[in-house]
Amino acid sequence: MSLSPHQQAPSGPTAVLLLGMGGPAEATEIGPYLQRLFADPHLIELPFQPLLGPLIARTRRDRLRQRYAEIGGASPIARLTARQAQALSARLAALRPEADLHVEIAFRYAQPDVHTALRALKARNVARVLVFLQYPHWACATSASALAQLGAALRAEPWSQPCEWGVIDRWGCDPGYISFLVQALRDHLSQSPPTPAPLLLFTAHALPMRQVARGQNYAQEVAATVHEVMKALGFAFPYLLSYQSAIGPVAWLQPSTVDVIDGLGRHGQQRVVVVPVGFTTDHLETLYDLDIVLAQRAQRAGLTHFHRLPAPNDAPAFIDAMAAMVLAHLDGSALPSMNLTLRCPGCQHERCPADDFGFLS
Amino acid sequence: MSLSPHQQAPSGPTAVLLLGMGGPAEATEIGPYLQRLFADPHLIELPFQPLLGPLIARTRRDRLRQRYAEIGGASPIARLTARQAQALSARLAALRPEADLHVEIAFRYAQPDVHTALRALKARNVARVLVFLQYPHWACATSASALAQLGAALRAEPWSQPCEWGVIDRWGCDPGYISFLVQALRDHLSQSPPTPAPLLLFTAHALPMRQVARGQNYAQEVAATVHEVMKALGFAFPYLLSYQSAIGPVAWLQPSTVDVIDGLGRHGQQRVVVVPVGFTTDHLETLYDLDIVLAQRAQRAGLTHFHRLPAPNDAPAFIDAMAAMVLAHLDGSALPSMNLTLRCPGCQHERCPADDFGFLS
Repeated sequence: MSLSPHQQAPSGPTAVLLLGMGGPAEATEIGPYLQRLFADPHLIELPFQPLLGPLIARTRRDRLRQRYAEIGGASPIARLTARQAQALSARLAALRPEADLHVEIAFRYAQPDVHTALRALKARNVARVLVFLQYPHWACATSASALAQLGAALRAEPWSQPCEWGVIDRWGCDPGYISFLVQALRDHLSQSPPTPAPLLLFTAHALPMRQVARGQNYAQEVAATVHEVMKALGFAFPYLLSYQSAIGPVAWLQPSTVDVIDGLGRHGQQRVVVVPVGFTTDHLETLYDLDIVLAQRAQRAGLTHFHRLPAPNDAPAFIDAMAAMVLAHLDGSALPSMNLTLRCPGCQHERCPADDFGFLS
Repeated sequence: MSLSPHQQAPSGPTAVLLLGMGGPAEATEIGPYLQRLFADPHLIELPFQPLLGPLIARTRRDRLRQRYAEIGGASPIARLTARQAQALSARLAALRPEADLHVEIAFRYAQPDVHTALRALKARNVARVLVFLQYPHWACATSASALAQLGAALRAEPWSQPCEWGVIDRWGCDPGYISFLVQALRDHLSQSPPTPAPLLLFTAHALPMRQVARGQNYAQEVAATVHEVMKALGFAFPYLLSYQSAIGPVAWLQPSTVDVIDGLGRHGQQRVVVVPVGFTTDHLETLYDLDIVLAQRAQRAGLTHFHRLPAPNDAPAFIDAMAAMVLAHLDGSALPSMNLTLRCPGCQHERCPADDFGFLS
């Protein structure tokens, strides 16, 4: 395939490809979006997936429509990612006016998909592509799944033009990202009375234990983000890490965020500051699962103060962090992680999608 | 109870109480040791525990005897902890010759137990006790269980003499401890050929998911230790965190260390450096579970290079780290963690044992 590293310095435009999950941008997109989710063997493992996937997707569609209706009818991911891309592009142009840098977007389950994005990159005749995974913490269900789709698209339509590929594969402890989280916490804490004393509840998307058991470091990486934030705050507050948005009858990473809120309320905790980690933009998991469901649970559990910190979105501090990561990777002062080419010990797939992109590490 | 903080500066000797799990020092102690383990509702949760505990303990006795026979007949914990205490005492005397400092030991399931240790402290007429939990990462099953027993002993036999109490409750990211782990890794890596390329496999004792689900940060704290070590090494190696020594039919933290070794071998990994974290001395979990069982699994899985890093034991760098932690807590520059008084959201016990010791934070 066409992914072998290009030996000479690239002569031509460079693209930064923001690669994420995406979401249904219109209510009519909810059905097709779910169909794509349930067809992805990296994300959801089902027996007889080609048969069972579409069936389950259909049974979940109406419930999901209701949830999206409560946050405005559809997902804000496309809109927010476009704003991030625009802000990142402007920031990169300011930092490197001489470079021919373009920011493109590709979504795993929505438009623009990898095929659309690759066509745009080809049309620009790019000589270099830096794939920027929009998941701070690596999971096969998300990061590897996105790379798998990109790799398959590249194998299906090989490029004639030489192109150098790079990947920002995980960045949960990037100093700029940590600093964004710390500053958001400090801002909130300094703008609110010190009592009742806050507990910081970090919450990340859960992962099925079956996937954890295969040897993914996802939970370790999420915990490291929490550690870096708490370290920057001098461990000056009690804190917990919990996992949210689990669905279906399988076992997931624990503890669950809603259970933790219930228990904290039972023990008389009055104030909780919820810190979502691992989400780059607001979407159903923050706007519905946290702002609606969790906030209601908190109220029922007797908490008097419940505050959810914002997702990064296009906050200038986060865009600065993104730009710094991009430039460090383009300059070669940062490389893909050593774990990128580490196949999960219990991998069930024929090949690891990361192998296509691991040549640089 | 007698644990309220003492307002004046203590006038009298200070004791550092190393509080750990202990192990059967003689083969004849294996039975009673197991009886105590299976009677502890913080460590092992059984229905009808007073009936079922002794029964299960009896069924496991012979298997455990065989395992201890393979590592010399009994547990080295008592002997190694005594050496740590002696070395720590000497180090503290060298650093603070003017202070009247004594190091005592208490084991949760072995001799000297808390009653023996408290009698020794009373006889010394100590004015201050710093409880130094020998678990770097907090878990109710270990840390809280040990504090519960100590608190109960103090309530049962109140002290007439005024005494100031402190706790070192968790220290998995203590810079001295991290530096011990990093140096042990660097020593091994610098003394061995660079090929085959090593994978670092961090392994910590597993925790039942039922306990994790109650909202304990154990896994987060273990992951933070791994993160600090990898950060000091510049993330220059692929690495994984897995959990070991799970027993019984319940679900435990994942991935399991043996499964990870099997999978790594299957994918052609030749060399693994095993880094035990969370153990302060060698015992069955390192000498049998890692050096015998895991080493055999590694060989069968096709690994050509398998190396297990030493437990801290009385390594001078680790004793230095212990001494620095003790002095920082005695001087007041370090305090118990803010999480010490945080009751687990899903706590099933009548009271949190940490409450007795949380007055300082």
